[in-house]
Amino acid sequence: MKETIKRVLQFTKDRDWDQFHQPENLAKSISIEAAELLECFQWNSEFDHNNVTEELADVIIYCIQMADKLNVDIEEIINKKIDKNELKYPIDKSKGKSDKYNKL
Amino acid sequence: MKETIKRVLQFTKDRDWDQFHQPENLAKSISIEAAELLECFQWNSEFDHNNVTEELADVIIYCIQMADKLNVDIEEIINKKIDKNELKYPIDKSKGKSDKYNKL
Amino acid sequence: MKETIKRVLQFTKDRDWDQFHQPENLAKSISIEAAELLECFQWNSEFDHNNVTEELADVIIYCIQMADKLNVDIEEIINKKIDKNELKYPIDKSKGKSDKYNKL
Amino acid sequence: MKETIKRVLQFTKDRDWDQFHQPENLAKSISIEAAELLECFQWNSEFDHNNVTEELADVIIYCIQMADKLNVDIEEIINKKIDKNELKYPIDKSKGKSDKYNKL
Repeated sequence: MKETIKRVLQFTKDRDWDQFHQPENLAKSISIEAAELLECFQWNSEFDHNNVTEELADVIIYCIQMADKLNVDIEEIINKKIDKNELKYPIDKSKGKSDKYNKL
Repeated sequence: MKETIKRVLQFTKDRDWDQFHQPENLAKSISIEAAELLECFQWNSEFDHNNVTEELADVIIYCIQMADKLNVDIEEIINKKIDKNELKYPIDKSKGKSDKYNKL
Repeated sequence: MKETIKRVLQFTKDRDWDQFHQPENLAKSISIEAAELLECFQWNSEFDHNNVTEELADVIIYCIQMADKLNVDIEEIINKKIDKNELKYPIDKSKGKSDKYNKL
Repeated sequence: MKETIKRVLQFTKDRDWDQFHQPENLAKSISIEAAELLECFQWNSEFDHNNVTEELADVIIYCIQMADKLNVDIEEIINKKIDKNELKYPIDKSKGKSDKYNKL
């Protein structure tokens, strides 16, 4: 993953785009790309595999740039969040249910 | 990254949540989490570093689950998308500009 | 407003699009259009007035269709929500502050 | 509708919140509320009618504030957009199809 992250950041650097990539703008960009991913499912649950993976990649690319700007390691923040989710969603309470933790 | 991805998927499996994780529902979930990330910047560009990294982690966690459901490798789809972006945004045309490729 | 709402609904009816307009799909559509509106501000707070009003209109059009599908009157649900917001945000506590009601 | 719009704007004015309501921040807010509406349908298409109407009202309230900040009349921008949509989606080409205009 390190090489891929490096490439994503280099792509931005080569284009001198860091000036636009404040965390706030990246948060907007992640929402915008997430909506393009959602658009693949706008009217039904069928989808074009290729389109969906491209839009998903766009979301992840902005997430990588956001993590870089925040100076955090992606694996580390995922693991921290899963630690927290394990406490919020104990297996015995949440198994097979899609309820939010505050409604379990 | 492999170990982290495994842990994310195991978390879901342990809770029997795969039944909810159709690509369409994951696309909705990514948009929902992206908006929670955006909410950290709703009224200004200052932000709580801890909140932001947690919300960012939530977005990435759902992206990992989506990639799994689509049976694609995250690094591979990122690299494919960067290949494409390099053609859409040649350095000499896009350097220092935030314009979309169709307005360059 | 009644004439305008009528026209919006007739537009859909003429195209036989009601079959796609389940509340869930309209919720996705509102998010998708909201993101297109957000895109007008992706990299800075300057904006093209014409673009922005068009995207805003798209959001409202889907909101009108959603209200119709839910069988609710737009003015009524707005007034109910403002009633509620007045309790959540008493003037003396919230004046000049952008904090959420649970942080006031 | 005029009375309702007046009330929405007065609510904001009473709280001195106009200072936060730049178009960019309202665009973020519309996306955030749209995602809360979407969350009512996150895992399936069943929904709580009351929750959904409240979230829908939140989206519309921010749209009203945005229109005010942009100095446009809501009915006027909707009608202009429908005019445009009628050209983009002629009945004979689009009837019964959920395709985007550029794929008709």
